[in-house]
Amino acid sequence: MSITHPQGFLAAATTAGIKPSGNPDMALVVNQGPQFVAAGVFTRNRVFAAPVKLSKQVLADGQVQAVLYNSGNANACNGEQGYQDAVASTEAAAAALGVPVSDIAACSTGLIGEPMPMDKVLVGVDKLAEGLGDNGHAAAEAIMTTDTVSKEVLVRGEGWSIGGMGKGVGMMAPSLATMLVCLTTDAVVPVDIAQAALQKACDLTFNTLDIDGSTSTNDTVLLLANGASGVSPSIAEFEAAVLQACSDLADQLQSDAEGVTKRVKITVQGTTTAEMALNAARTLGRDNLFKCAMFGSDPNWGRVLAAVGMADADMEPENISVYFNGEAVCEKTTGTPGARDVDLSGVDIDVLVDLGTGGPGTAMVRTTDLSHEYVEINSAYSS
Amino acid sequence: MSITHPQGFLAAATTAGIKPSGNPDMALVVNQGPQFVAAGVFTRNRVFAAPVKLSKQVLADGQVQAVLYNSGNANACNGEQGYQDAVASTEAAAAALGVPVSDIAACSTGLIGEPMPMDKVLVGVDKLAEGLGDNGHAAAEAIMTTDTVSKEVLVRGEGWSIGGMGKGVGMMAPSLATMLVCLTTDAVVPVDIAQAALQKACDLTFNTLDIDGSTSTNDTVLLLANGASGVSPSIAEFEAAVLQACSDLADQLQSDAEGVTKRVKITVQGTTTAEMALNAARTLGRDNLFKCAMFGSDPNWGRVLAAVGMADADMEPENISVYFNGEAVCEKTTGTPGARDVDLSGVDIDVLVDLGTGGPGTAMVRTTDLSHEYVEINSAYSS
Repeated sequence: MSITHPQGFLAAATTAGIKPSGNPDMALVVNQGPQFVAAGVFTRNRVFAAPVKLSKQVLADGQVQAVLYNSGNANACNGEQGYQDAVASTEAAAAALGVPVSDIAACSTGLIGEPMPMDKVLVGVDKLAEGLGDNGHAAAEAIMTTDTVSKEVLVRGEGWSIGGMGKGVGMMAPSLATMLVCLTTDAVVPVDIAQAALQKACDLTFNTLDIDGSTSTNDTVLLLANGASGVSPSIAEFEAAVLQACSDLADQLQSDAEGVTKRVKITVQGTTTAEMALNAARTLGRDNLFKCAMFGSDPNWGRVLAAVGMADADMEPENISVYFNGEAVCEKTTGTPGARDVDLSGVDIDVLVDLGTGGPGTAMVRTTDLSHEYVEINSAYSS
Repeated sequence: MSITHPQGFLAAATTAGIKPSGNPDMALVVNQGPQFVAAGVFTRNRVFAAPVKLSKQVLADGQVQAVLYNSGNANACNGEQGYQDAVASTEAAAAALGVPVSDIAACSTGLIGEPMPMDKVLVGVDKLAEGLGDNGHAAAEAIMTTDTVSKEVLVRGEGWSIGGMGKGVGMMAPSLATMLVCLTTDAVVPVDIAQAALQKACDLTFNTLDIDGSTSTNDTVLLLANGASGVSPSIAEFEAAVLQACSDLADQLQSDAEGVTKRVKITVQGTTTAEMALNAARTLGRDNLFKCAMFGSDPNWGRVLAAVGMADADMEPENISVYFNGEAVCEKTTGTPGARDVDLSGVDIDVLVDLGTGGPGTAMVRTTDLSHEYVEINSAYSS
C-alpha cells in the first residue's frame, strides 16, 4: 500500500546514522514517469529550512523525479552551509539515479540548528539508490521523529490510485501541521489541476490541525503524478481523492500528536466571516487552560468563554453558547443546569461555540489536549 | 504594611464559605477620606465578569469609597443574575458602611460560570463591615485562589506612601495579568494624574506579564487615593512610586505563577516598531515548545527561531540572533559553537532575540516555563 502502490513509483529507506537512536532516518521516493508532474505546499514560517528553499526552486517548473527525505535533523538555521548541504545531497542522488539535480526535491525533519552529518548522508544516498523497490512502508517509517506509528494512506480511483505517507506529531499549527507529507499518484493530471487540488485539500485538512500553536520551519506537502495508469480522472474525482488522502493522514497525525490523550474538534459559528470563526477557533485551540481542562475531562466551559472573548472575531458577548459533545453547557453566556456533569471521559471531544451574532461565518479546527506527556516529550528534546 | 499602611484606609477579611476549602474568601477595603479619588484599569476581554461591569460604572465619576472582594467565584458568565448579585452585594456593603452604593466597587476571582452563593455573601458582607481595621495582610490572603503566597507591597514617599495587594497565578496575559490588584495611597493626587499614572504603570508591568496567553474575564487594578497625608507629591514622584508598586507586585505574580519553575524574560529588538517587537516577544512567550524547553533547561534555540518566524514583525529571516543569559547561541540564523552547552539550570532565564533589521523597535515580556505542575493544576480546576 501507500506511496509505492500507484504504478511507476519506487521507494527506499535506510539507516544512515543521523538519529542517535539508530532507527531508520533516510528515504527516497522515485517517480519513474512517464510524466513527472509535481505540486507542493510549504510552511508559511519566514524562518524556513534549507531543503524548503531548495524544494521550492525545484518545484518552480512543476516537475519532480525524486524526493530525498531525512529525519533526525531539520537542516534549518544552518546558514549558507545548510543550503550547500541540501544541494550536495540532491546532487549525490542525481548522480546515483541518473536524473537532473533540478528535478530532485528534499525534505528534512528533526532538530533545528544542527549541521548535517554529510559523510553519513552521502553514504545513505548511495544505499537508497541501490535499495529502490516497493518499499513505501519502510519509507514512511524512516521519516518518523517522535511519531509512535507510521502514517500511510491509499485512495483507489477507477484504474488509478493515490498513495501517501506523512509524519508529524508536534509543532503542528496554522499553516500546515508540522509535517512532511508525500502523495503519489499514477493518474494523468495536469500540473495546475494537481497544485489546485493539493492546496484546496491542505486548507481543509492539515491547515485545520493546530496541536500546539507552533509552526515548523520544514513543513512540506508534495504530490507527484506520473500518469502511468493512463487514466485521466475528472477534476472533481481527482480533488475528492486528494482531499480524502489528506484528510485520512491529518486524522492519523492528530491521533499520534505528542502527548495526546484527547482529540478535540472545535467548531465556531455565529460570527460575521469564516476568517473570524477561524480566529476564534484557533484562539480556543491554543488556550492552555482550555487544553488542560480537556486533559482532565473537565467541562470547564468558562475557559472557553474567556478564550474566545479575546479572539479577533465579531461576537455578542452576552449571547454566546457552548456545546460539549452536543450538550449545551452555556447559553446566552450563562451556564446551563448540569453543565458541570457533562461526560468528557471519551477520547473524542466535540466543542461547538456560537458567538451569537447570527452571522454566517463558521470554521473548524482540530487540536489535542495538553498533557503531562506533552511536557515530558518537549522538555528535553535537543539534549 | 500593604494596603492599610497609608493613612485613612481600613480593611477586613472573612471566611464566607464561598470556597470549598474553607479558606478566607471575602475582603473589604475602605477609604476613610478626606478624598475618594479612584483610578482603574480593567480586562480587555470582551467576555467580562459582572463585577467588572459594575466597577467600571462606579469608577466613571473617579470616586470610590470602598471595594468589596471575593475569591472562589468569578461571578462571570452568570447572565443578568450575576449582575444583580454584584449589585446586591455592594448594596449590602453600602448599607453596612453607610456610604452611597454608587461609590462601592466590586472584584471577584475564581471559577467562571457558577452562581454566587448570595446567602453566604450577604452574611460575609456584614462580618466584613464589623471587622474593619489594620487588616491589609488578612485581606491580601482572602483574595488568593491558587496563589501559594499572598502578594503585598509598600512604597514610601516623603510623608506619604502607597500600599498594595494583588492576586493572580494563571490566565495571565496581554491585557493585564489575570489578577486583582488594589493600591491605596494617602497622597494628595488629582484623579486624572492617578489614572494616567496607573495606566502607564500597568503598561510597563502587568501588561508585560504573559504566563499562559490566556486573559481573564475579571482583571481589575484599582488605585484609591485619599489625600490623608496632606502631601502632594510631584507627578514624576507619584508616577515613579506607582510604577514601583506595580513592578514589585508583577514580580511577585510571576514568581508564584501556576507551576512555575523558571522565570523567563524575553526581550526582542532589531525590528521596525515597538509593537512589532511586542508581537514577536509574545509569540515566543506563548510558544509551548519553547516553554517546555525552558522547563527542561534545554537551550533549544531552534524553537525560538521557529516561533518568532511566525510573528507579525519585520525581520531579516537570515540575520536573526538569539542570546540565552547573555551568551550568543545563534548568530545570522545559525547556531554558534557551544550553543547546546549554555547553562540554563538557574531559575531566571534571559532571552534576547534580535530580528536583524537594524530597526529601533524593542519590547520585553515576562513569562514562565510550561511544567508538569501547570498541567496538573489546570486539568481539574472546576471539579
